[in-house]
Amino acid sequence: MSDSVTDYGIVLVTTSSPEEAKVIASALVESQLAACVTVIPVQSIYRWQGEINEDQEWQLIIKTRLELFRALSDKVIELHSYEVPEIIALPIVAGSQAYLNWIGENVRLNKC
Amino acid sequence: MSDSVTDYGIVLVTTSSPEEAKVIASALVESQLAACVTVIPVQSIYRWQGEINEDQEWQLIIKTRLELFRALSDKVIELHSYEVPEIIALPIVAGSQAYLNWIGENVRLNKC
Amino acid sequence: MSDSVTDYGIVLVTTSSPEEAKVIASALVESQLAACVTVIPVQSIYRWQGEINEDQEWQLIIKTRLELFRALSDKVIELHSYEVPEIIALPIVAGSQAYLNWIGENVRLNKC
Repeated sequence: MSDSVTDYGIVLVTTSSPEEAKVIASALVESQLAACVTVIPVQSIYRWQGEINEDQEWQLIIKTRLELFRALSDKVIELHSYEVPEIIALPIVAGSQAYLNWIGENVRLNKC
Repeated sequence: MSDSVTDYGIVLVTTSSPEEAKVIASALVESQLAACVTVIPVQSIYRWQGEINEDQEWQLIIKTRLELFRALSDKVIELHSYEVPEIIALPIVAGSQAYLNWIGENVRLNKC
Repeated sequence: MSDSVTDYGIVLVTTSSPEEAKVIASALVESQLAACVTVIPVQSIYRWQGEINEDQEWQLIIKTRLELFRALSDKVIELHSYEVPEIIALPIVAGSQAYLNWIGENVRLNKC
């Protein structure tokens, strides 16, 4: 499998509450920065200011075009309650063409 | 870390019910198109035919060889209730060799 | 979006119990092999020694620098109850710089 890369990816974001997850997910879909957002309740263990913490969080898995990452990131930061929210993108290297087309039809074009 | 890529990847699929998730997951493992499938209940927010929708879904995380993506995709489409199911692959860039070998031993070879 | 790759990635590990998930997650964060670990209860369908099995597991999503993969993998194997635990890394191709910096500040440098 060549290390082919598509124009698409998933973006991971965590939030502090299901309400915050829904606000951010809905805003991303409504503003066509994402075609679909999946939300999962999770438990997070992390280091913050030198201390090990454990909190319940909500994991968003955001399906989009990777060229929208900057605009998507700005929208998440605008809405998010954290000082430094998780916003990381993973590459989609293969996909059913019908599904990738569906993502493409449901997100805005990136006007550079 | 060089952008090394292995022959392996994870494939993400969502289904409308836990039963559908189990049927598809079992079929993929039994037909050696996947070595392991993890299933997670999720909430999905998405745009379909211009409307924002929210539904419960089940997220499959499928561990396989990326060269099997086309055959795996065909099997999912054959069994799936959606018109356009999510079928997207992410690349594994590093892995415990014993685990990657285990995936390799439990999926079929791709006869091109 | 060029197939740019950052030095960061997520590592997926599954465990047999929430206690094992917490022991491994805490050890990785305390030893600065990971900045954050997210834990999710999942259902896994897999082939083991020729049989199809279904078990409850716990999925760890570990955020780290990819150059630490070998040391992280060794630590998981040291603590894990499985003979062949899942330890696979996916590449982060884009991220909020503040978040990537936070990962970098909370994991050790890899002394080669």
